[in-house]
Amino acid sequence: MDNNLNSFFAALSDPTRRAVIERLTAGSAPVSELHEPHGMALPSFLKHLGKLESAGMIRSEKTGRVRMVHIEAAPISEAEGWLHHQRKMWEGRLDRLSTLAEKFEKENDDG
Amino acid sequence: MDNNLNSFFAALSDPTRRAVIERLTAGSAPVSELHEPHGMALPSFLKHLGKLESAGMIRSEKTGRVRMVHIEAAPISEAEGWLHHQRKMWEGRLDRLSTLAEKFEKENDDG
Repeated sequence: MDNNLNSFFAALSDPTRRAVIERLTAGSAPVSELHEPHGMALPSFLKHLGKLESAGMIRSEKTGRVRMVHIEAAPISEAEGWLHHQRKMWEGRLDRLSTLAEKFEKENDDG
Repeated sequence: MDNNLNSFFAALSDPTRRAVIERLTAGSAPVSELHEPHGMALPSFLKHLGKLESAGMIRSEKTGRVRMVHIEAAPISEAEGWLHHQRKMWEGRLDRLSTLAEKFEKENDDG
């Protein structure tokens, strides 16, 4: 799982690759349509798709002359889950600190 | 914001850096304590801290002879927010497809 997160986060560190993910959340698309908005040579664009595919974030299949690209949901959930957990841990700590501070204040008022 | 996400996700693509974030969610810590579990030369470890710091995910301050490291919460939330949005978009599409399929089935039953 740790290795998965390495490649998920590395794959998401590039704006072209994030744009591909954003587009694919609306539905699968052929490579040509994904490539079109990026003003980039096709081989460079295919390298980006390759990184997403080897990270397991997309899969593609050739139907006739068209290569269709699909999103894989699990990596998004796994990366989101890790971040969510960190935030919850951090917020939990803030809550405990705040409870301690209130308790301290109350004890000082009472005393 | 796009540039922020580049550096947040790149910073999180390394297990040492994720371990530092995980440790800091429990509370701020001196560099020496953060370094201790990693069995890595200090200069290499400081490079990892430097990447987290330049991504804005941690900040540090020297008090006396000790450099304390603190987590910055905003980048975690921003990266989590991006992933959450992608998942919601994707799930929304699945819901719409499922509604369409039900409607189609019902119309076929009625006909």
